[in-house]
Amino acid sequence: LSRLVRRLLSARRSLDLCLFSFSCPQLARAVQLLHRRGVRVRLVTDAQYMGLHGSQIGRLRHAGIQVRHDQHSGYMHHKFAIVDRRMLITGSLNWTTQAIQSNRENVLVVEDAEYVKAFQDEFERIWEEYNPANYKFF
Amino acid sequence: LSRLVRRLLSARRSLDLCLFSFSCPQLARAVQLLHRRGVRVRLVTDAQYMGLHGSQIGRLRHAGIQVRHDQHSGYMHHKFAIVDRRMLITGSLNWTTQAIQSNRENVLVVEDAEYVKAFQDEFERIWEEYNPANYKFF
Repeated sequence: LSRLVRRLLSARRSLDLCLFSFSCPQLARAVQLLHRRGVRVRLVTDAQYMGLHGSQIGRLRHAGIQVRHDQHSGYMHHKFAIVDRRMLITGSLNWTTQAIQSNRENVLVVEDAEYVKAFQDEFERIWEEYNPANYKFF
Repeated sequence: LSRLVRRLLSARRSLDLCLFSFSCPQLARAVQLLHRRGVRVRLVTDAQYMGLHGSQIGRLRHAGIQVRHDQHSGYMHHKFAIVDRRMLITGSLNWTTQAIQSNRENVLVVEDAEYVKAFQDEFERIWEEYNPANYKFF
């Protein structure tokens, strides 16, 4: 957790988050701190999981952070962060206290531009796809 | 799915699987095929998920593939495969039909030895830790 927080807090310009589940208070505090410092934070999450008990999504929205979510029955199951469009943090780890404390998990930190670009492109695709202006209600 | 199967079927000597959830029949067939070809397949999985409806673990064990699982309340939440100790396949994707058909997921294929070694080491640690000979029953 401390190593993950340290990587996140290295952000100077932008933090793009694409997270299936986000309930870990310490990680939410780090993200809020970056937002207050003026880092541009964007967060994409899963519609079914963002309302679960302990979710930090409401708190982050309340703090003024932009959040978008899917509208599908399938899961938005990514768990990655991109710091300053140059450092990719990805793996099996959901941003929950259970995952950090109790599970076997992996987190990869990658600065290879080829990998970062693939995830940044996926983030931008999802960010547009989940733009509320594009919502269709039947 | 077809690209993942193709990577798996490139295995000539060994396939190490560390999978939270494994219910996709096509992937199970690919793993069985490798086993029949004489590739050494080892599989580590999660105790709570391996008995769920649709799990392929029983079928793979029945085919003679070695399977080990955790004994903890926390999840064995990794989702990675290592082909011939040289190619790492990892990401958010659980090996389930839902994940493949319905979710937003990522899968990284990495041949950089530094990354592969970190995951291979974790695999060997887990493989020993979950050795049934080490089980303790209270």
